[in-house]
Amino acid sequence: MEQILLPKGFYSCAKNLGIKDHTPDFTVIFSDTPAAAAAMFTKNQFCGAPVTVGKEHIKDGFLQAFVVNSKNANVATGKQGIQDVHTIIEAVAEELNVKPKDILPSSTGVIGVPLPVQKIVNGIPGIKSELKKDGLKDSAEAIMTTDTFAKYRSEKINGVTLCAIAKGSGMIEPDMATMLSYIMTDAKIDPDNLKAILERAVNASFNMVSVDGDTSTSDTVAAMANGLAGPVDLGKFETVLTDMLISLAKDLARDGEGATKLVEVRVDGAKDNREAKLMMKSIINSPLVKTAIFGADPNWGRIISTIGNAEYPINPEEVSVAFGDLPVFKNGEPAESSLEELTNYLEGDEIVISISLGKGSGKATGWGCDLSYDYVKINGEYTT
Amino acid sequence: MEQILLPKGFYSCAKNLGIKDHTPDFTVIFSDTPAAAAAMFTKNQFCGAPVTVGKEHIKDGFLQAFVVNSKNANVATGKQGIQDVHTIIEAVAEELNVKPKDILPSSTGVIGVPLPVQKIVNGIPGIKSELKKDGLKDSAEAIMTTDTFAKYRSEKINGVTLCAIAKGSGMIEPDMATMLSYIMTDAKIDPDNLKAILERAVNASFNMVSVDGDTSTSDTVAAMANGLAGPVDLGKFETVLTDMLISLAKDLARDGEGATKLVEVRVDGAKDNREAKLMMKSIINSPLVKTAIFGADPNWGRIISTIGNAEYPINPEEVSVAFGDLPVFKNGEPAESSLEELTNYLEGDEIVISISLGKGSGKATGWGCDLSYDYVKINGEYTT
Repeated sequence: MEQILLPKGFYSCAKNLGIKDHTPDFTVIFSDTPAAAAAMFTKNQFCGAPVTVGKEHIKDGFLQAFVVNSKNANVATGKQGIQDVHTIIEAVAEELNVKPKDILPSSTGVIGVPLPVQKIVNGIPGIKSELKKDGLKDSAEAIMTTDTFAKYRSEKINGVTLCAIAKGSGMIEPDMATMLSYIMTDAKIDPDNLKAILERAVNASFNMVSVDGDTSTSDTVAAMANGLAGPVDLGKFETVLTDMLISLAKDLARDGEGATKLVEVRVDGAKDNREAKLMMKSIINSPLVKTAIFGADPNWGRIISTIGNAEYPINPEEVSVAFGDLPVFKNGEPAESSLEELTNYLEGDEIVISISLGKGSGKATGWGCDLSYDYVKINGEYTT
Repeated sequence: MEQILLPKGFYSCAKNLGIKDHTPDFTVIFSDTPAAAAAMFTKNQFCGAPVTVGKEHIKDGFLQAFVVNSKNANVATGKQGIQDVHTIIEAVAEELNVKPKDILPSSTGVIGVPLPVQKIVNGIPGIKSELKKDGLKDSAEAIMTTDTFAKYRSEKINGVTLCAIAKGSGMIEPDMATMLSYIMTDAKIDPDNLKAILERAVNASFNMVSVDGDTSTSDTVAAMANGLAGPVDLGKFETVLTDMLISLAKDLARDGEGATKLVEVRVDGAKDNREAKLMMKSIINSPLVKTAIFGADPNWGRIISTIGNAEYPINPEEVSVAFGDLPVFKNGEPAESSLEELTNYLEGDEIVISISLGKGSGKATGWGCDLSYDYVKINGEYTT
């Protein structure tokens, strides 16, 4: 990829502060002018200390910096955890000469281990001189935990630049995930519009991804728009942002822990979009469906069984299921697709499962991945 | 184990009819006198054809036979599936000289493949002469699918005999599972009492087990009480039955697909028993908790995270978590247990996770297992 420059007025720095090992574990993304800002956070009731602080700092709709560490989530760390967030924010605020409340903090990594706050604070002086315009990929790398590749995008909309980074590869569940994403633009957008656009874009993207149904304690998606490139067509901006976040969301699913395949589940014919989304989630999270796809085993009975467990009424004789273009169940009866065709299709690395419920016009599309030996390996050996 | 005799008036036969391979795949359990009967079935809306028929046959509260095949679930087989059940039942009814409606049928195995009904019907003549008194274990073997051992129990209550068999090792979820269980007693109990006792015993046992959160299409628990040994103290009977079904439920969890450990989750301090059960289920089904236990990794942060995702309010500062007797989180703060002690404990083959929510007197205890490489192997290669 070509060198990517951050939007006007944005600078970043990424480095290793020795939180756990020698890989990058800390990044600051800075706007040299106050930016309209919006954020969405995990709904987990054991949210991390940085989420608690971030919710306060976003309230006035303006920020100047994102400060993120990986390798330690600062979750379930009690009162000390909150104190540690403030200590770090104050050090960054002093270094960058911004107000502490204009910094949005995040931490991702292991839960229940106190943050090595002194190491982090020791690493902050001098950061201002390390800020640069072309550090988007470096920041994307610094926020990785079990991710196997950095996730970042950049687009131009006329004279405006829109960039985003994301991380996440396990515990990714709709309604925000063990994922972080930061969006930077030099478009001029007021905080209320930014918030509304962000929420709709996240609902169509990150909230449609699931790796294992667990929702994490740290999830944060945050955007800054500093206005230095002037106004933008908001409709066009929303379309580009939504496509960008869907593309990142698919990266998250593709990079699900141990994943070998990206799985897209399309549900239509539900009573409404809510019921379609519930069905999509139940399929994408079913360990039996996920292991069958890993094994390229066209065991569509497991999909039927999961459909039958819906919390709302299903008409079995209206239900149809297909792998790609290959029907396996049509209007309540097994359909004619050959085992060979099905197995060939399932050996690919992008699998689409389509489900029609025959009840109404509700729809949802979501993304997940298969469940492999490596998922077990990665998660059986995580802290040790 | 000693030779086990069925209760008075009960006989069974188990054999291979070539449904899929050469292992036992068919059993008949017969009472030579009409028996009071009760049954509970899966709530899955794609329930198997035998479940649809069984629900009709149990309505009058009397049965004389259970007829079960393994290796094929006769689910998602359309109208032909229902016809196939009737064909088999009629052949058995003629052979045993009972009414078709006094037979409760079950099928378990792969979904969406037509039952090889002619093979089964061909195997039925002569079964009456093969019925025997000591075939409990053989019947338990004939209903196995991915089970690695046969599950059966027998107890005496004064002069009365109570026997049960069960199968299930994957897709086992509270509210009935890919499990079947049949209970036979010569106690005299009327159908209404038998139903009430059975429901309470199942709610405390099979409905508290989960392997992977998928609820199957075939689940059935059914009981016959033919009265040949006379009346029984109903309170005593219920206690023995409940203990027997809990013991079988733990067998199911221990034999979860690929399981290396039995996991017991005890929740107390919930607002009520319903909230306690929801919490128990969410812990027992979390892939992240299950893989950590497989890896003997004391990553209690995943338990905290799962608690935080409850659909109801949690007070983080009231929450405590322990592995066995080792506290890891106490009233909202990390607790002092050494990594070495925790790892030693988690290397055992029976793990107890205790969670206190500090809100009320609601309680639940449930059982599940870890998530291992073999779970992926078994489920990635099931139909092929």
